[in-house]
Amino acid sequence: MKVINLSEKFAKFSDQWSPKIAGELNDSYVKLVKLSGEFVWHHHDNEDELFLVVSGTLHMHFRENGAERELTIRPGEFVVVPRGVEHKPAADSEVQVLLLEPKSTLNTGNVRSERTREKLDWI
Amino acid sequence: MKVINLSEKFAKFSDQWSPKIAGELNDSYVKLVKLSGEFVWHHHDNEDELFLVVSGTLHMHFRENGAERELTIRPGEFVVVPRGVEHKPAADSEVQVLLLEPKSTLNTGNVRSERTREKLDWI
Repeated sequence: MKVINLSEKFAKFSDQWSPKIAGELNDSYVKLVKLSGEFVWHHHDNEDELFLVVSGTLHMHFRENGAERELTIRPGEFVVVPRGVEHKPAADSEVQVLLLEPKSTLNTGNVRSERTREKLDWI
Repeated sequence: MKVINLSEKFAKFSDQWSPKIAGELNDSYVKLVKLSGEFVWHHHDNEDELFLVVSGTLHMHFRENGAERELTIRPGEFVVVPRGVEHKPAADSEVQVLLLEPKSTLNTGNVRSERTREKLDWI
């Protein structure tokens, strides 16, 4: 058992859209990621994802009943994206996010692209 | 989908040692709890628990290889208590904690006492 300090972990990397593993529990990983700009639209067939914003402002675009919507998530706030929901994270400037999701979760979900990260490192 | 603001949720209750449900994902709950003083020693046979400190200072006592140890967890820090590990949260003054653990998790684990909370409410 050890204490994980989020600020210290975020200070250890600068690459964006590349989640790092900071902890594990019950077949899930706690991941840290820095985001800026727009990601790809995708969904996860079998995994719900938690996005907790640590710094910056995250815009979560998603599709619901055929309509596109957007949620703004600020530090100290979180959102859960349920499995099956098409979503696209975006940020005007860098945002630091804590993710919690099953170990099986691929960052781009059902879409494979140059933004897909197959193997994640611990930090 | 909705945004959960931790400060707003914590402002809605004052009772201690009584976790409230703030979100759910993948058969787990995100819970918010206020702690002060000492809890009971217990463990969870089948569940790992994440403790993320939002405000205040949490002291996590635990037993490892027969010895008692203690970790101090401050705001912006988390610890995962693996299943099977005897532990006792404590705080000198009130600490606000975000928990993530399987829905099946009982707050007092293998021990039932007047501090056990069988049914948790959403907040």
